[in-house]
Amino acid sequence: MDSMKAYIEKNRDRFFEELFSLLRIPSISSQDSSRPDMMRCAERLTELLKEAGADSAGIYPTDGHPVVFGEKIVDPALPTVLVYGHYDVQPVDPVELWKSDPFEPEIRDGAIYARGANDDKGQLFMHIKAFEYLVRENRLKHNVKFIFEGEEEIGSPSLASWASMHRDMLAADIILVSDTTMLSETVPSINCGMRGLSYSEITVTGPDKDLHSGHYGGAIANPINILCDMISSLIDKDGKITVRGFYDDVVELSEEDRAKLARAPFDEEEYRKFLNIDEVKGEAGYSTLERTGIRPCLDVNGIWGGYTGEGAKTVIPSSAHAKISMRLVPNQDHEKIAELFEKHIKAIAPSCVKVDVRHHHGGNGFLIPISSPAYQAASRAMTDVYGIEPVPSRGGGSIPILADLQKILGIDPLLMGFGLERDTIHSPNESYLLKQFFAGMESIALFYEYYKGNK
Amino acid sequence: MDSMKAYIEKNRDRFFEELFSLLRIPSISSQDSSRPDMMRCAERLTELLKEAGADSAGIYPTDGHPVVFGEKIVDPALPTVLVYGHYDVQPVDPVELWKSDPFEPEIRDGAIYARGANDDKGQLFMHIKAFEYLVRENRLKHNVKFIFEGEEEIGSPSLASWASMHRDMLAADIILVSDTTMLSETVPSINCGMRGLSYSEITVTGPDKDLHSGHYGGAIANPINILCDMISSLIDKDGKITVRGFYDDVVELSEEDRAKLARAPFDEEEYRKFLNIDEVKGEAGYSTLERTGIRPCLDVNGIWGGYTGEGAKTVIPSSAHAKISMRLVPNQDHEKIAELFEKHIKAIAPSCVKVDVRHHHGGNGFLIPISSPAYQAASRAMTDVYGIEPVPSRGGGSIPILADLQKILGIDPLLMGFGLERDTIHSPNESYLLKQFFAGMESIALFYEYYKGNK
Repeated sequence: MDSMKAYIEKNRDRFFEELFSLLRIPSISSQDSSRPDMMRCAERLTELLKEAGADSAGIYPTDGHPVVFGEKIVDPALPTVLVYGHYDVQPVDPVELWKSDPFEPEIRDGAIYARGANDDKGQLFMHIKAFEYLVRENRLKHNVKFIFEGEEEIGSPSLASWASMHRDMLAADIILVSDTTMLSETVPSINCGMRGLSYSEITVTGPDKDLHSGHYGGAIANPINILCDMISSLIDKDGKITVRGFYDDVVELSEEDRAKLARAPFDEEEYRKFLNIDEVKGEAGYSTLERTGIRPCLDVNGIWGGYTGEGAKTVIPSSAHAKISMRLVPNQDHEKIAELFEKHIKAIAPSCVKVDVRHHHGGNGFLIPISSPAYQAASRAMTDVYGIEPVPSRGGGSIPILADLQKILGIDPLLMGFGLERDTIHSPNESYLLKQFFAGMESIALFYEYYKGNK
Repeated sequence: MDSMKAYIEKNRDRFFEELFSLLRIPSISSQDSSRPDMMRCAERLTELLKEAGADSAGIYPTDGHPVVFGEKIVDPALPTVLVYGHYDVQPVDPVELWKSDPFEPEIRDGAIYARGANDDKGQLFMHIKAFEYLVRENRLKHNVKFIFEGEEEIGSPSLASWASMHRDMLAADIILVSDTTMLSETVPSINCGMRGLSYSEITVTGPDKDLHSGHYGGAIANPINILCDMISSLIDKDGKITVRGFYDDVVELSEEDRAKLARAPFDEEEYRKFLNIDEVKGEAGYSTLERTGIRPCLDVNGIWGGYTGEGAKTVIPSSAHAKISMRLVPNQDHEKIAELFEKHIKAIAPSCVKVDVRHHHGGNGFLIPISSPAYQAASRAMTDVYGIEPVPSRGGGSIPILADLQKILGIDPLLMGFGLERDTIHSPNESYLLKQFFAGMESIALFYEYYKGNK
């Protein structure tokens, strides 16, 4: 009987071919024009699930992009693992910064380069292959269900209601997810909590037409200047968010918990070097890992208004826009925060302009206990593969749908992520280190070895 | 002998045809791709000048877009009028807001609609036709020179040095310009002063790549947030610009001068209605006309950074950008202001980001005495045509090159502008009211009647 390692060695080229067939499909969920590609990608996933050994796999329509569901039921009495992943990807702009076509995967310097190489096509693919190995080698002692959605990057607007309608079909003991990062290549870690998200868009409108800044400059409110004033007021000098009531539900961690988290190795100099910045910056009184792990934050994700082309144009634009998101910590409710945000923005809007707030999406954060059997099984598996016990970490990113699924299905999510900071997901030249890709498959196969259910 | 009015009546259709041939050429000076169109437009202008009666007309290369110069010397002893205009136009975005193709002129509701219909092809065309009338009717008692540049909308980077090299050729008694507005259709006015301009671009750079806002949000400086902070700090609560030293050279007007300017009729309610705003806004202690006429100001003309497409993307961008211009009043030096601005921006830039300042262009403001023969001739001419004595006004816009030409050639510029607020130059649906178009031609023809030189 082969080990997963040996199985990878034998099937390596086929694995690449199969993964690349997914990566070549530009499944950008935020663009309406991607609909046919979303469907192609969903179809390709059902093929891969069936080839890997699923009893059945199908495409389920939603109000948005379809959900892929597949399963293999070995014995209803055995523990059931529900694997979650997403096949949609982020947009690729600025596309001119990519060294190779984002949708023509390339292996160079020991990594796969493509949009989705890591997030999340590369990571979900590890689960299909670990499953295939267990099936073909007759080692599968679990029921396995796969749920792959096509809307994670736009906040999973359809999956929660779909999951509510398919509760029985999705029944399981644990939700297993690879859609996050480890602390570093040599410091494996398991995410035991993630931040939530609230994402909105502000539009500031002044005059009902663009105006010549020479004729009107100085006499009327410029929507861009006003937008900047408003944004600037949202964070104070200590890095605290000024939205009224924003921190009301934030639970302060105990000194003990903070000390535990502080054990995670972190080299600020290396961090700064990787980002090419001179200084880190954030909420006063917290470390960098705390700022991204246990504290909420507010970022402008996009801003535009007026003339943005080549050269100069002396215009006062009619309107200016910003996309603003807040990362939330467990116990903050994203719907409440969205409401507080809108109320605050309306309250600080000066009367010389009109201000409109539109909510894009949101989701709550969550936490999984380190003492749980699933966490322990993942920890043993990764210790075997990496030779080091993984550090429990708190992830900065959000997978809002996991908090929803946890609520709807009553199952904890476990985040075994194998991405690294260097992978620059969401940015140009997204990549996935082959070493991590294969170590991930091994860890997942071993997880099934150690996980005996929640009792 | 026909009056100009009768001449217009007879030649109306040909005038439209000729003007439209200019308007159809998309001579957008800020776009490199427009070079062939700039040349076509310059060629068409030389044709029109020759057909109108110029002894000669030619295209003069510069480091940028070419200059068109033409002249008719009747007698060196007669006073000489130098007509200035520009054949370049502003970009047309957002193009989807145009009701008709910006480069396919259309007459509707008594106005010509096209990019450049007013600014400045429509207005310079009046001068060619008034000249044609005087030549053909044997009424020309001046030498007339025409200088049309192709870089006004990008700050005339080439004309000043070109003019320095052609001082003798450009020698004249007055620079006559139609490139501004009147106070209203029923309140003719003559601009006796204009603001200067300093136009720069700021780039704020944080990390050297776009980052996932979940992983990094809260721990590093977001270039958009920083840019907003910096912009917000540039204007204080009283509407004063905070750039250190900015007001040093601004001359405060006497109460008497302010009272004179205050005689210009101004209906704030109508102004607000036209712009569809609830409130005007500007520097405390000054009226709206003062804010655009005699006070400097600062406006963001464009801002961009991060994800600006459809939907949501959770990104912290590597950089954010803003185009910022300041309108200056006479006695402020645009080069000094550009320096002060850059110094200030560098001084307030936080150490967690890199900040770069690039200067686009600039120019100084200027003033012409109301008592001058040229102003008086223009005033008589417009009184004849409109039946009302024009109000001396101070224009908000900038034609920085006029201050330069004044310095280089030692000649005062006189601004007889026939645009109206409703023409929305620089914006979608730029237009030029036919009534103004024809009244402008008549006023110009009469100006030559009354102007006998500067003695």
